[in-house]
Amino acid sequence: MKREKLLMTPGPTMVPPSVLKVMSAQIIHHRTAAFVAEYEQLEENLKELFDTKNMVLMFASSGTGAMESAIVNMFSPGDKVLAVSIGSFGDRFAEISSVYGLDVVKLAFEWGEAADVNKIKEILDADTTKEIKAVIMTHNETSTGVTNDIEAVGKLTKDTDRLFIVDAISSMGGIQIKTDEWGIDVVVTGSQKGLMCPPGLAYASVSDKAWEACEKSTLPKFYFDYKKYRKGFLGQGENPPFTPPVSLMLGQAEALKLMKDEGFENVFARHASLALAAQAGVAALGLELLCAQVNSSNIITPVKAPEGIEIGKVIKTMNEKYDVIVAGGQKHLKGKIFRIGHCGYADRFDLARGFMALELSLRENGYPVELGSSLAALQKSLG
Amino acid sequence: MKREKLLMTPGPTMVPPSVLKVMSAQIIHHRTAAFVAEYEQLEENLKELFDTKNMVLMFASSGTGAMESAIVNMFSPGDKVLAVSIGSFGDRFAEISSVYGLDVVKLAFEWGEAADVNKIKEILDADTTKEIKAVIMTHNETSTGVTNDIEAVGKLTKDTDRLFIVDAISSMGGIQIKTDEWGIDVVVTGSQKGLMCPPGLAYASVSDKAWEACEKSTLPKFYFDYKKYRKGFLGQGENPPFTPPVSLMLGQAEALKLMKDEGFENVFARHASLALAAQAGVAALGLELLCAQVNSSNIITPVKAPEGIEIGKVIKTMNEKYDVIVAGGQKHLKGKIFRIGHCGYADRFDLARGFMALELSLRENGYPVELGSSLAALQKSLG
Repeated sequence: MKREKLLMTPGPTMVPPSVLKVMSAQIIHHRTAAFVAEYEQLEENLKELFDTKNMVLMFASSGTGAMESAIVNMFSPGDKVLAVSIGSFGDRFAEISSVYGLDVVKLAFEWGEAADVNKIKEILDADTTKEIKAVIMTHNETSTGVTNDIEAVGKLTKDTDRLFIVDAISSMGGIQIKTDEWGIDVVVTGSQKGLMCPPGLAYASVSDKAWEACEKSTLPKFYFDYKKYRKGFLGQGENPPFTPPVSLMLGQAEALKLMKDEGFENVFARHASLALAAQAGVAALGLELLCAQVNSSNIITPVKAPEGIEIGKVIKTMNEKYDVIVAGGQKHLKGKIFRIGHCGYADRFDLARGFMALELSLRENGYPVELGSSLAALQKSLG
Repeated sequence: MKREKLLMTPGPTMVPPSVLKVMSAQIIHHRTAAFVAEYEQLEENLKELFDTKNMVLMFASSGTGAMESAIVNMFSPGDKVLAVSIGSFGDRFAEISSVYGLDVVKLAFEWGEAADVNKIKEILDADTTKEIKAVIMTHNETSTGVTNDIEAVGKLTKDTDRLFIVDAISSMGGIQIKTDEWGIDVVVTGSQKGLMCPPGLAYASVSDKAWEACEKSTLPKFYFDYKKYRKGFLGQGENPPFTPPVSLMLGQAEALKLMKDEGFENVFARHASLALAAQAGVAALGLELLCAQVNSSNIITPVKAPEGIEIGKVIKTMNEKYDVIVAGGQKHLKGKIFRIGHCGYADRFDLARGFMALELSLRENGYPVELGSSLAALQKSLG
């Protein structure tokens, strides 16, 4: 029997049926009361999710577009920034900064490690002339399954003139972010991971300090110009300024309602317990995490490929024979790890299906497995 | 009885049921054979629609993002361009060019007029030192319902070093464009008008001459960097480079199949005959077009508000009482015109519903109407 594919990837993630249903309705026009009501409700729920009083801007774009938006709206050519990278997406944020002519101080850590906050503090402390205008970093590094301690970094920048810009594309909705309390000036994310919607929408929250920076920024922008999006919310122009992806936005509005009904705190707790269960399942199979358990992500679990096993084949078996899609490693981690996503619309039953497929696929590709051992471990972990 | 709203707006336009159905299926992953097959088929069908051998790049973005992409990929600061505007969207293209530091020669015509090709020729001929690197213009100006003769303009640039960049956001799919034959170097469009899909996807075709310009362009770009998108098609990188809006792309693939089944030539002919029928309906009601009939768009019919009638109220009645949405005028044409869309998934029955609602709403707001007169005219026109 063939089943629908189960995506246990870092994104896109599974979309709840009621979200799909909303998106399958005939399109409505975006300059109508019906749309505006949903749009404004979505804005309010996004603020609650982000835990912020800041405006959350919405773009028709992938997450990368929102990362770019943060750079072009906050800075001018030559501005010095500290870009912290622990993997592929941290590298991307640094690269975008360089492309736009910023003076990038890059602080890179070994893939599989979390950023050392002391190292960040040292660099900022040594910058006595305050040339570094911002710290730019990834919250959850999808490529390695490692989560950074952005709360600690926020303390370094909060009561200073420096901006703190966070890529929360894979974490928002899965891992709690206290945007205002932690002093994050721009948080960017996308619709297709913790937010349980198809890809194509991206978001950016903008603090007062960030709006001040926006006023000074000389980098050219039009499509991602924050001020154009703010105008609408201030009643000074059409809202949104450009034709929005209506069906995705209505789907996103529905997904946020589902999350709110569950309770955002409960959503975060569900992700945390799924991560612990996945870690228990991995251990029960005699496999190792790529990173220290304390840094392992609540939305994706990175696992080292067992010695002598071609992990690409295991991933292929999971997909083709058992219809469960997990991700391999990126760049130099290709063939060396696999990553089990448990993000967004995911619960213990999905995790169990994933581990059943994993057990079978490992065994079929030469790795000895005591069938059911990981299932018992994850069920026990979840309690 | 309340009916589903009929959008007779310039976009979004109605989405065919089979497209909605495709988008209501559970999400699939974009790095799978199933997605890639649809993506490659979509690319082939887009090329056929654009009538080009050029690559057609796809972005998660509104149409405005694709307009911006053409500017940032083709030019360097200070480059001189001729921006031809006959309305709001022509103004936007000129504004984007200015924001990115181009030296913009703007040739603007009265709203309601088509661009005078002789004036364009004069300017290009007078530029004996060939400082003007490109002509940038709108094919179909949505704000006024006027279509420009881009074939004639293409002849001025085709065998020269100058680029010809066309905003076909509202025309592509509704009005024939022979991209290669007419020598258009970059054609940008969006998913939500003639392409019968919800908004959120945008496209750009890129000629060999345009790729050469791309190599020389020094404007910074990342998310809209054409070379990143080309890499995937050349097998040199992940395709697409960033997480695509999977559900919209699958919907778009289905919509293109529907258009291909009908035959692209037949699709264009259907739009042309609907436009003539709408013009006949307008005349039967004693109303006037905003523009000369020869310039009136095949996808949207612009009509002058009758003397002494508050057209905003007519539009409101059509929407609230009869569930038909037409568009008013923009900027200085607000209150002076209304625009009847017949674009994409639209046929004579939709047009009849629109004119029934229009007749009733005009009458209820004080304009004398012989009921049925416009219906008879449009049915007769369509034959």
